[in-house]
Amino acid sequence: MSSVLKFPDDLVAQFEPYSPLPGPHDFPSVTLTFACSLDSALSLAPGVQTHLSGPATKSMTHYLRTLHSAILVGVSTAVADDPGLNSRLEGAKHQPIPIILDPKARWDITESSRVVQTARDGKGRAPWILINSKHWDDEAVVNRRGMLQKYGGGYIGIPADESGKFSWRTLLSKLKQELAIDSVMVEGGGNVINSLLEDGESRQFVHNVIVTIAPTWLGKGGVVVSPERKPDASGAYKPPRLSKVKWIPMDEDVVLCGKLSN
Amino acid sequence: MSSVLKFPDDLVAQFEPYSPLPGPHDFPSVTLTFACSLDSALSLAPGVQTHLSGPATKSMTHYLRTLHSAILVGVSTAVADDPGLNSRLEGAKHQPIPIILDPKARWDITESSRVVQTARDGKGRAPWILINSKHWDDEAVVNRRGMLQKYGGGYIGIPADESGKFSWRTLLSKLKQELAIDSVMVEGGGNVINSLLEDGESRQFVHNVIVTIAPTWLGKGGVVVSPERKPDASGAYKPPRLSKVKWIPMDEDVVLCGKLSN
Ligand SMILES: NC(=O)c1ccc[n+]([C@@H]2O[C@H](COP(=O)([O-])OP(=O)(O)OC[C@H]3O[C@@H](n4cnc5c(N)ncnc54)[C@H](OP(=O)(O)O)[C@@H]3O)[C@@H](O)[C@H]2O)c1
Ligand SMILES: NC(=O)c1ccc[n+]([C@@H]2O[C@H](COP(=O)([O-])OP(=O)(O)OC[C@H]3O[C@@H](n4cnc5c(N)ncnc54)[C@H](OP(=O)(O)O)[C@@H]3O)[C@@H](O)[C@H]2O)c1
Repeated sequence: MSSVLKFPDDLVAQFEPYSPLPGPHDFPSVTLTFACSLDSALSLAPGVQTHLSGPATKSMTHYLRTLHSAILVGVSTAVADDPGLNSRLEGAKHQPIPIILDPKARWDITESSRVVQTARDGKGRAPWILINSKHWDDEAVVNRRGMLQKYGGGYIGIPADESGKFSWRTLLSKLKQELAIDSVMVEGGGNVINSLLEDGESRQFVHNVIVTIAPTWLGKGGVVVSPERKPDASGAYKPPRLSKVKWIPMDEDVVLCGKLSN
Repeated sequence: MSSVLKFPDDLVAQFEPYSPLPGPHDFPSVTLTFACSLDSALSLAPGVQTHLSGPATKSMTHYLRTLHSAILVGVSTAVADDPGLNSRLEGAKHQPIPIILDPKARWDITESSRVVQTARDGKGRAPWILINSKHWDDEAVVNRRGMLQKYGGGYIGIPADESGKFSWRTLLSKLKQELAIDSVMVEGGGNVINSLLEDGESRQFVHNVIVTIAPTWLGKGGVVVSPERKPDASGAYKPPRLSKVKWIPMDEDVVLCGKLSN
């Protein structure tokens, strides 16, 4: 897992129109990116890391990470995959800050979590974990915070709604205010991605979408990207659709780039 | 719906490696082809015809139909969409025979069904409907058979298993024996496609796969292509995966061509 990755210049040029465009905004620019099967599955089951796409799109992901201030994942991905959340691109000039949505402070992050090891080794940044403010003084949180602070990471408290979720508006503006993050790659898992796609309010924050599709069907029972059909103000449901679309074949996979138009 | 479609020669060449290869076999060559969203939905709901892909892939479908002896759909598609099941390609030299899987003889096909009108107008072939043999003498079947025979179509009785399904082996060999069909495009809907992908026994009959993907997520609740995970003889589940893959962008969509390797 420590191999160094390369992403060729001709491919870099292809992704240029889908680069984050940070500006003087209250919110970071959001890139939604993930790899899925033909039946839109990220993995065979929750907690099962599933090898889907080939080496070229892996390099692409590590290249894209160097363009963003932060990478964001949900707590179930953190718990299941113990991810490094850094870029292993050869000569990476910039490492993104790992952000984890963990409202219930479920993730028992320790010195031996891979993201902490990676930060300690100077190969990535320490993570920031977004929790429901009400867990701020929980004993476990206080202890883990002490550990994270050594590496430059920590916790951020955000009020969650009655279903225990953060609104994307609140959490993104917090990332800008507290960590000066002006671009973020939302990488997964299914739950996080679906919550971003499910209505117009959250979709408006998504600037670029970069999806890798592998030519396989994982079959029923996987962790699937498919948003709930939340009706808009008029009571109608408008499926999210991409515009300015480009399809880039890589190895056996295809990479879809686009802008979210609604 | 009566407009004539064109498919340019340069695109024709791209599809050459995925043409049906009829030979001296007991079974027709099967091409699996459909259009879906990023979340693998064929339609917003059963019975809701959903506009997904652009004009280029529509022409492609009508081109591919001219290469096959038959097109096959499930009865729910026939009932819901009242499809023409012909090719509207400009100068089409060959029209495929429409085949409908209708074990319970549910489809009340009449003189005004579109597929019958199309045959009457000389713009397509009359359909053959595959029913469970036990419905052969049902009054409705006898009456409809009389109507279909006028146009050169009819019913074929096949023994269904205890769940009321035909095995692909039996139904495909019947198409070869009774109608001399040596290539068939399986076009949908979800139920039919999933039954073809769900295990190694049926997958072995699929020679070419041509899937159009549109850059939209229809959201939860659609008619979805995602097979059941039927274990193989060793008890393991092996997801179907394509080999010899080609991704061809058309309009805003991509067309995935491949061979089923397992
Ligand atoms: N193929 C890929 O590109 C890819 C990428 C990433 C992950 N994955 C796979 O995806 C699977 C995990 O996906 P998953 O859907 O089970 O989980 P997930 O999305 O990683 O995490 C879901 C959890 O994150 C929290 N969360 C999500 N949205 C939130 C919001 N708006 N506000 C506050 N908290 C929020 C909730 O935590 P609480 O339940 O504590 O409230 C939620 O249950 C794993 O198998 C992983 O390997 C694949
Ligand atoms: N986007 C596209 O490319 C595309 C293409 C075609 C259809 N569609 C859409 O798909 C939807 C319909 O799909 P659907 O999944 O509801 O139905 P469907 O697949 O069209 O028809 C299913 C029915 O066909 C019969 N059947 C299927 N497999 C069989 C087998 N092995 N042996 C015997 N009978 C078999 C069964 O009839 P019984 O229930 O009577 O047993 C089954 O319920 C419609 O909304 C249509 O518009 C989209």
